[in-house]
Amino acid sequence: MTCKMQEMTWQDFDEIRKEGIVILPVGSTEQHGPHLPLSVDAIISEGLAVMIAEKVRGAVAPTICYGYKSAPLSGGGPFFPGTLDLNGLTLMNLVGDVLEELIRDQVKKILIVNGHYENEAFILEAVDLISRKYPDVKIVEASWWDQISQEVMDRVFDEVPFPGWALEHAAIAETSLTMFFRPDLVKFDRLIEDGVEEELTYQVYPAPKEIVPKSGLLATARTSSLEKGKWLAEDIAEFYKKIVLKEFNKS
Amino acid sequence: MTCKMQEMTWQDFDEIRKEGIVILPVGSTEQHGPHLPLSVDAIISEGLAVMIAEKVRGAVAPTICYGYKSAPLSGGGPFFPGTLDLNGLTLMNLVGDVLEELIRDQVKKILIVNGHYENEAFILEAVDLISRKYPDVKIVEASWWDQISQEVMDRVFDEVPFPGWALEHAAIAETSLTMFFRPDLVKFDRLIEDGVEEELTYQVYPAPKEIVPKSGLLATARTSSLEKGKWLAEDIAEFYKKIVLKEFNKS
Amino acid sequence: MTCKMQEMTWQDFDEIRKEGIVILPVGSTEQHGPHLPLSVDAIISEGLAVMIAEKVRGAVAPTICYGYKSAPLSGGGPFFPGTLDLNGLTLMNLVGDVLEELIRDQVKKILIVNGHYENEAFILEAVDLISRKYPDVKIVEASWWDQISQEVMDRVFDEVPFPGWALEHAAIAETSLTMFFRPDLVKFDRLIEDGVEEELTYQVYPAPKEIVPKSGLLATARTSSLEKGKWLAEDIAEFYKKIVLKEFNKS
Amino acid sequence: MTCKMQEMTWQDFDEIRKEGIVILPVGSTEQHGPHLPLSVDAIISEGLAVMIAEKVRGAVAPTICYGYKSAPLSGGGPFFPGTLDLNGLTLMNLVGDVLEELIRDQVKKILIVNGHYENEAFILEAVDLISRKYPDVKIVEASWWDQISQEVMDRVFDEVPFPGWALEHAAIAETSLTMFFRPDLVKFDRLIEDGVEEELTYQVYPAPKEIVPKSGLLATARTSSLEKGKWLAEDIAEFYKKIVLKEFNKS
Amino acid sequence: MTCKMQEMTWQDFDEIRKEGIVILPVGSTEQHGPHLPLSVDAIISEGLAVMIAEKVRGAVAPTICYGYKSAPLSGGGPFFPGTLDLNGLTLMNLVGDVLEELIRDQVKKILIVNGHYENEAFILEAVDLISRKYPDVKIVEASWWDQISQEVMDRVFDEVPFPGWALEHAAIAETSLTMFFRPDLVKFDRLIEDGVEEELTYQVYPAPKEIVPKSGLLATARTSSLEKGKWLAEDIAEFYKKIVLKEFNKS
Amino acid sequence: MTCKMQEMTWQDFDEIRKEGIVILPVGSTEQHGPHLPLSVDAIISEGLAVMIAEKVRGAVAPTICYGYKSAPLSGGGPFFPGTLDLNGLTLMNLVGDVLEELIRDQVKKILIVNGHYENEAFILEAVDLISRKYPDVKIVEASWWDQISQEVMDRVFDEVPFPGWALEHAAIAETSLTMFFRPDLVKFDRLIEDGVEEELTYQVYPAPKEIVPKSGLLATARTSSLEKGKWLAEDIAEFYKKIVLKEFNKS
Repeated sequence: MTCKMQEMTWQDFDEIRKEGIVILPVGSTEQHGPHLPLSVDAIISEGLAVMIAEKVRGAVAPTICYGYKSAPLSGGGPFFPGTLDLNGLTLMNLVGDVLEELIRDQVKKILIVNGHYENEAFILEAVDLISRKYPDVKIVEASWWDQISQEVMDRVFDEVPFPGWALEHAAIAETSLTMFFRPDLVKFDRLIEDGVEEELTYQVYPAPKEIVPKSGLLATARTSSLEKGKWLAEDIAEFYKKIVLKEFNKS
Repeated sequence: MTCKMQEMTWQDFDEIRKEGIVILPVGSTEQHGPHLPLSVDAIISEGLAVMIAEKVRGAVAPTICYGYKSAPLSGGGPFFPGTLDLNGLTLMNLVGDVLEELIRDQVKKILIVNGHYENEAFILEAVDLISRKYPDVKIVEASWWDQISQEVMDRVFDEVPFPGWALEHAAIAETSLTMFFRPDLVKFDRLIEDGVEEELTYQVYPAPKEIVPKSGLLATARTSSLEKGKWLAEDIAEFYKKIVLKEFNKS
Repeated sequence: MTCKMQEMTWQDFDEIRKEGIVILPVGSTEQHGPHLPLSVDAIISEGLAVMIAEKVRGAVAPTICYGYKSAPLSGGGPFFPGTLDLNGLTLMNLVGDVLEELIRDQVKKILIVNGHYENEAFILEAVDLISRKYPDVKIVEASWWDQISQEVMDRVFDEVPFPGWALEHAAIAETSLTMFFRPDLVKFDRLIEDGVEEELTYQVYPAPKEIVPKSGLLATARTSSLEKGKWLAEDIAEFYKKIVLKEFNKS
Repeated sequence: MTCKMQEMTWQDFDEIRKEGIVILPVGSTEQHGPHLPLSVDAIISEGLAVMIAEKVRGAVAPTICYGYKSAPLSGGGPFFPGTLDLNGLTLMNLVGDVLEELIRDQVKKILIVNGHYENEAFILEAVDLISRKYPDVKIVEASWWDQISQEVMDRVFDEVPFPGWALEHAAIAETSLTMFFRPDLVKFDRLIEDGVEEELTYQVYPAPKEIVPKSGLLATARTSSLEKGKWLAEDIAEFYKKIVLKEFNKS
Repeated sequence: MTCKMQEMTWQDFDEIRKEGIVILPVGSTEQHGPHLPLSVDAIISEGLAVMIAEKVRGAVAPTICYGYKSAPLSGGGPFFPGTLDLNGLTLMNLVGDVLEELIRDQVKKILIVNGHYENEAFILEAVDLISRKYPDVKIVEASWWDQISQEVMDRVFDEVPFPGWALEHAAIAETSLTMFFRPDLVKFDRLIEDGVEEELTYQVYPAPKEIVPKSGLLATARTSSLEKGKWLAEDIAEFYKKIVLKEFNKS
Repeated sequence: MTCKMQEMTWQDFDEIRKEGIVILPVGSTEQHGPHLPLSVDAIISEGLAVMIAEKVRGAVAPTICYGYKSAPLSGGGPFFPGTLDLNGLTLMNLVGDVLEELIRDQVKKILIVNGHYENEAFILEAVDLISRKYPDVKIVEASWWDQISQEVMDRVFDEVPFPGWALEHAAIAETSLTMFFRPDLVKFDRLIEDGVEEELTYQVYPAPKEIVPKSGLLATARTSSLEKGKWLAEDIAEFYKKIVLKEFNKS
């Protein structure tokens, strides 16, 4: 049976909801350079959520495919057509409503898989407000880039040094993962060499256009591969599984 | 080229945004009886949006897959696991933010394809607030069930009389359209005969459970077919195309 | 004794509040053509509320005399001076606060009589949010035009065919009811023949001025009469009484 | 012609709106002792508004008949059934929306007649937010008790000393004014002697019940009379007229 | 030991929180004429809070140093650089959050010392909303100018008559109290004679600049002295102590 | 002259506002282990702001002394009395209002010095919303821990390795800086050895108490010293000065 709620009937979901875990992927609609689609963050978080769900008998709620505002040095900021940003309050209310509805369906174990760096503070605020109201429900939030073993990191960043997660935007990890989950959407022929020249230690508003590469690529994606995407996906999904086992006593 | 923004790079979208139309499908996550998936409203609105986009050179924004609260006599109400409802304010802010972001990308023509009855007032409030701020942008909102020719209605409701759109929930039109767009997700073997016994002329809170059929099916889906779904989809898409031609001067 | 809370002392209300029903009329301030006053929706909902209250020993709360935004094809939209619209959130909070205050006064049975089409979704959102908080209170919401017997409809629309409730704005039903409740406010000499030429199946923003008749009259009011208003009022009030008997076990 | 917008057609209002003043009365639904109705604040503010409108060719917008939370020592607080209080945010949004709609109708001169002490800060916040947005519109807010000549005060408080406006609740001024505007609603036979024993110099939450007289009467109403109501009303209306002349250059 | 929470470790606060009183000073950042600093309202409310805390074994929470919008005739209004005003909703949420956090720390007795006239309604709205949620916590709110004995008033306003508290802005009481608490911040050499010429009985928006003295001084501060500040501070602190004893049974 | 707005008269501020920079420190009220006061984040951000102001002729706005919710592994979370957290929306509105008021005073250059890790996303959301409204104003936001040279880091973390900034809570950097700015408030005798045993790669709600050391100290503060505090403060202030020079063309 499918693990995606979107594909389930309500009766399918009824069987899983009280004992099972519900996994909520949160992505964004954001530029990812000349070679990746706008939905990279949704594709990766949903793809991982499905892998995790299969490991732990979970159901995957519909992916939240709009996210919080892209920042210049971790996503290109407001300069690129196609980046569709939510205000902080909107994302907070959206995540909060979905969580509350799951809880009203008697779900007691919720895992949020975040795929967009800028989302995190607003997701956590939503979780906090809901958690105060329903203290008997356990909610875990984890961004995928924090769940990778050093070994896989070393294999993925074999030639090119790891630039830090902020700049790893449309770069090797995201490109490889998108190649793994949706190879049809990666336009490798359009890939160029580009990257941020200088990282600022502060934020400027209005954002200065010149600090962001014109391509939207914040670091090189040169050595990306479907195989690296597979290593990453499997490693990350296994990591999440361990979190689920530990926090929810569940296999 | 794909017409789905989710599958486009930002440069793909850049080419289309200033002259083209952006189509925003709005669905829901809501029970649709024992034989249809929770995402029927998203599947249909997105499916139609893609058909329209192909006719008018439009781009389809990521489908809003959570909607406003299901009402007992048009969607089954709060009684079914898997129905995940947004509060009115949340949906208003969500739609409003997406519209504003499209407008900030210089999009001037936006068509909203609504697939969930209860969404409409809150979508329109969002549109009104944005429209006051950006009066030079034209926004059209149309629910799909209002865009069907009488001829196709007669063909679809050939044996079973049309029960009205409120009760046409998980029934012949929605089942046929889902068979057309996602035949793999229709579990026809689970289909039963069921329906609302008495329509109330008023709303009661808390909603009385007994007014809603236990299956969640508000009217029969017996005579549904993929062919009827095709008739509906093509008729509706053609109808929307005419709206686009009339309102946006666009082919 | 009066049934209007506005005319009661607090001690009068104290006697009725715990056992009785409180009826909350919700109207609007909206153009109603050249012959009807801006407060038609408030006049009719309050007039009916008083009739119902007399039948069921209820108290009528002060009428909410501002409503949600007038739509072009059900109220003339934003084009007419004197139409004073509330934002959706404002109406939601206003209705919600009044309900919560009644409940804090230990009222357990509340009937909302809606007199303005566009109000409904926002009233219901307010009711839903309050109802979740106070599940032991029963709240019924009913728009008056949904509570008419076919027999009276046939008598009222004897010469002129019924145009549907959206277009029945400032037309035969509203004119007749206003003649019944406040004959002094109907300027029959100013009545003209006018009406919507074409109903759109969709909404356009900014609203196109040309789709609304310049008079604000959406359908003919020609055959209106005080007698028809009396038939309607008595039929509707009797209908509401039956709802009250059924839902609140109350005579 | 009537000066009440509620009784005008949109064409009547159209004639007055651009040059004339619109007067918005704001009241409350609040206990006023055993002898006065719950709508005293609405009756007085609306009654005065009509008198002023007649002097300055103004239109009176529909009275806002729900107000901000009654305070124990200026209105009896939350202890009395029938007192229906709005939250601060709700009143702010309600007043703000009405003002904005008047302004969108090109009204440039607005006078708010406040009849409920506790409303003032929230009305002013609404006015401030709107005024920042529309700096070319002039808005004056004035509570009626601040617009009385010393001479009339002396005549009204001839036997009983003036207790201050906070305690002047359901007392001589309000009783006399209600006798003037709506003599049918004053139950003089139920009037008792009562009053606050000790005024606190601070606020306590939850409000202590014992500081408020059980009758809801905060000071004696013994020497009230219709004649005193007339003196007050005429004096106050004249005072407002002078404000209008001064601030709006209008007769 | 210090009574300021800002100077305590969490363990210091842990000892006092369950039995003790927490005192929350609320000030503003607002012009106070040519001779007083922008933080007068914060200085005075915090200074008094510390004196009260020492008398009743209380802890003083960090002073809220931004307040609600200055009004022209009680603070100079929006005309003076350095007056930094909060919107009403912001102040309500800010005060509400701080109260709720104290209550979550099991504090049961809270005293709010208000030092800015315009704050009061919004502080009380915040208190009301929190108090409804936590009815077992007692919260007292008191503005300092309401807690002065007649005897001290007479001594302070010995030469110059008391102008009323609205106009007592940057005048004798506030100047003397600032001289007492922060003599280093009073620039007596810059003091001039100035004052409001005419008090309006109503509010005008946009505020007319000419009604406010250019200096920002609303009444004379001529006879201010550190000694008067001491009399006031000691009298007020003693008054608050009596409130604490009475309302919280605490010495 | 003082650089603190709180100590300035409005005329002092008037001289500096149009050409100068306004610096807004944002702190928190949060446990900082057994040896540091609750206001560490406010003390450090305000102390640095004053140092910067002196270098660039800036004015320091009143420090926002309440911050966003403490997280377990960067501040101890909700377990410690005295940690007083704001909701995200409250902090956003508070920062936004202060910025907007500065801008209404014609300030064009604003620097925000953040001293509390968890604040950042909500400060930036406030800045973004204001910046869209006032695009000609430049606003820079910078957390102090991102503005330290490697050389000083090496000198400060000479014996103890740097644990990362999340865990550097009440540890060597914060302790040394507090010793530098407010030596009187550091209780070195109460310092113990403590620290987080395991860093989670995800967030759990409700927060599990056992992951936070009972003392609230997340890493050792053993080798802290006033001298290190001085190195840090001077290095950081110099760093900020360079930012100001670069972004605001100002010395």
